[in-house]
Amino acid sequence: MNRLYHVPLSPFCRYVRLVMAEKKLEVELLEERYWERRSEFLRRNPAGKVPVLAMNGFTLADSVAICEYLEETHPEPPLMPKKIPERAEARRLVMWFADKFHLEVTANLLYERVNKKITGRGHPDSANVKAGAKHIKYHLDYMGWLLDHRRWLSGDRMTLADFIAAAHLSSLDYIRDVDWNRQPSVKDWYAKIKSRPAFRSILADQVSGFPQPPHYADLDF
Amino acid sequence: MNRLYHVPLSPFCRYVRLVMAEKKLEVELLEERYWERRSEFLRRNPAGKVPVLAMNGFTLADSVAICEYLEETHPEPPLMPKKIPERAEARRLVMWFADKFHLEVTANLLYERVNKKITGRGHPDSANVKAGAKHIKYHLDYMGWLLDHRRWLSGDRMTLADFIAAAHLSSLDYIRDVDWNRQPSVKDWYAKIKSRPAFRSILADQVSGFPQPPHYADLDF
Repeated sequence: MNRLYHVPLSPFCRYVRLVMAEKKLEVELLEERYWERRSEFLRRNPAGKVPVLAMNGFTLADSVAICEYLEETHPEPPLMPKKIPERAEARRLVMWFADKFHLEVTANLLYERVNKKITGRGHPDSANVKAGAKHIKYHLDYMGWLLDHRRWLSGDRMTLADFIAAAHLSSLDYIRDVDWNRQPSVKDWYAKIKSRPAFRSILADQVSGFPQPPHYADLDF
Repeated sequence: MNRLYHVPLSPFCRYVRLVMAEKKLEVELLEERYWERRSEFLRRNPAGKVPVLAMNGFTLADSVAICEYLEETHPEPPLMPKKIPERAEARRLVMWFADKFHLEVTANLLYERVNKKITGRGHPDSANVKAGAKHIKYHLDYMGWLLDHRRWLSGDRMTLADFIAAAHLSSLDYIRDVDWNRQPSVKDWYAKIKSRPAFRSILADQVSGFPQPPHYADLDF
């Protein structure tokens, strides 16, 4: 059985969960309090971070590396384009969310509001929350611009870029930090991806101390 | 002609330069003051960052996406393993440097000492420099551990992981922030990769206001 060491609201863990579900790969989810730095966990991933995937006798770390691995070992349904320049565009956007969106938005909102509390590191820093709330507007606008020109974020087909973007937005949606009225094309795109069976596990997540808001699992949000 | 928008000490630009040189791809280097946010540059990369590569009629952004593109379009010499699990290990380490090493070390040392001055954002924050100086020790030790067990960082063959690691260390070496005596296996590894013809352009870099230290370009450092 495949095993994923994760935390429920981590967008990077959700990225792996979504891609595995889309590819119909079963996985046992094991919650890992990575901030406690268990020595057995650190042996699996010296970076000390989730997600870590135990699969086919290998231990895989880093969500970007894991999802490329899943795509190479389980190419159906394809979540990367066939043409090389289109693959570069999908990867550019994967890295956009793994790097820029993560640092400008997710770290400022989710990590301040949720991770600090869960890991016992005090209260949210309001300057960071304010910066995150400002940045998410620009990111939603950029996604809106892309989706006004393309069916999916990186082109005509759904790719890994859509799943990493949806993973980040789903975690932020859980704490009510996404203004779905800002960009109609982003809302339409999220409604499409949220309706996929692959999303079910994520919509069922419940995090102690952070009750799920009513719209979160509603497909007509 | 391929054109790379870059800044000389950016480890991510150096990563692309090294990989292109290793694959014998010529490229014209254009220095881009990305912090001035030229509108033409922002059109090429809305992330507002270097490197950006104009190649084969496409504009490519993000060093991780660019190097995967170079590997797919110019597979010789191969810088990714053939076997899928080994590819996952190479990508895990690429992301280690793109993410963890970058945030814990490069941002605290290079960006504090050099980028702040060049972009007119004041003096280095000594707490950050101290944190970077502490973190680089752990990273060198981890690299040392890997290189005590493997010929190259991700296994028996040189991969993209070696080039992104060498790119980061070369930028830090330019500002004398690498203690080469800490881990003999890391020094041996760096001596091997530094001697490659692909490294020549990077060893010739001169940055105004930051004179090149004598050991930097010396192959017997």
